[in-house]
Amino acid sequence: MKTLVLVSHPRLADSTSQQFLKASLPPQNVTWEHLESQQKFDVDREQDQLRQADRIILQFPLYWYAAPAGLKQWEDDVLTRTFVYGDHRFPLADKELGIVVTTGMPEKAFQRGGAEGLTLDAALAPLAAVAARAHVRWLPTFPIYQFAYLEEPEKLQLVVDYQRYLTQAQPDSLEQRQSWFAHKLPAMIDQLPPEQQATGRLIQAEFDQQKDDIEALADTLAMIKEQEDD
Amino acid sequence: MKTLVLVSHPRLADSTSQQFLKASLPPQNVTWEHLESQQKFDVDREQDQLRQADRIILQFPLYWYAAPAGLKQWEDDVLTRTFVYGDHRFPLADKELGIVVTTGMPEKAFQRGGAEGLTLDAALAPLAAVAARAHVRWLPTFPIYQFAYLEEPEKLQLVVDYQRYLTQAQPDSLEQRQSWFAHKLPAMIDQLPPEQQATGRLIQAEFDQQKDDIEALADTLAMIKEQEDD
Repeated sequence: MKTLVLVSHPRLADSTSQQFLKASLPPQNVTWEHLESQQKFDVDREQDQLRQADRIILQFPLYWYAAPAGLKQWEDDVLTRTFVYGDHRFPLADKELGIVVTTGMPEKAFQRGGAEGLTLDAALAPLAAVAARAHVRWLPTFPIYQFAYLEEPEKLQLVVDYQRYLTQAQPDSLEQRQSWFAHKLPAMIDQLPPEQQATGRLIQAEFDQQKDDIEALADTLAMIKEQEDD
Repeated sequence: MKTLVLVSHPRLADSTSQQFLKASLPPQNVTWEHLESQQKFDVDREQDQLRQADRIILQFPLYWYAAPAGLKQWEDDVLTRTFVYGDHRFPLADKELGIVVTTGMPEKAFQRGGAEGLTLDAALAPLAAVAARAHVRWLPTFPIYQFAYLEEPEKLQLVVDYQRYLTQAQPDSLEQRQSWFAHKLPAMIDQLPPEQQATGRLIQAEFDQQKDDIEALADTLAMIKEQEDD
């Protein structure tokens, strides 16, 4: 699966969260682009990139309840009507669109009565409407609230969750997560320093054991459910 | 009352609707500015302009369910946090914010199940959230659907409705409309060519008569309602 990450930020070098996410990118099958680095968009190139991607990620800080102007400029310039839905062809149909959005305010601010008074879903409704028009599949949003206040363990979790958001098959089910981890774990263990290799192999064995346990549990659950349906 | 009209359009000279609206501006107490004509915003000047206005109008075509990138750039640059709500001062508090939005699709497209699948209110929710944050009063939106298809009488109506939206006291009640027309009518009649002055004076007399009739009706209605409340 090919993932295209389009980042919009007017001062990318100063953004600790964007630099952290850039360093956390999965090593393969990901194209990363900074929209504001382009003086003028090469529309053909941008459209080609979109055509070749299976999953498109728009990544940005929330400024005034929307993406920065740079992303809107990209929408206005690159997403021409003939490209998105002209002639009843939909070149983006069935691709996936994910939103990675950082906010300075905590999660609880984004609700009626909260400090921002608007849900992220409502703020992103115009983008979701573009996705609908393009017949693109909208993924559940990946919000990062108050990156500056995250502790180290939360940041490590963020790296894994972010990589999963960019590359794991959807929907984000237990099964898909297991399969994603099973696929990534050997390479992660190989990269550990020699003195931690033994621990790594223990984790791998534990993971495989848990996977078998969970599968057995899932089978039992399915059987019980089947009887209930009678 | 001072009105500030901020227009966002990447190709203003080519826009028949924007040129029509520009020609329809009320002659007094209105400042008109084209955002994309500025290479870089003079933030102090823009903020001063906002402080001096009683009613702020944001006027633009709807591109991908939002304002053009030029308006978002203005928001990102001019609406600094310290200006909008810093130090618990709200310099824009109790001013009015109106949105004049043109769309290529008809009104019925903007609903669930319609071609656009999104109401204008939902598309403008991020802007409304900015208004709420600034303690600015959000006026009901002034949408212009499919300007290119308007007939002459509809365009004449549009001129009057647009001028009222920019300058008439809110809420848009019968009383406020009457008072607005009563104030504007003499000047409008004065500007008519000599051979139409007589017709103009007839209209004025008719208007005054109707105004008295409506006031009498309103009084009667109020009396009836008062009895119902007993």
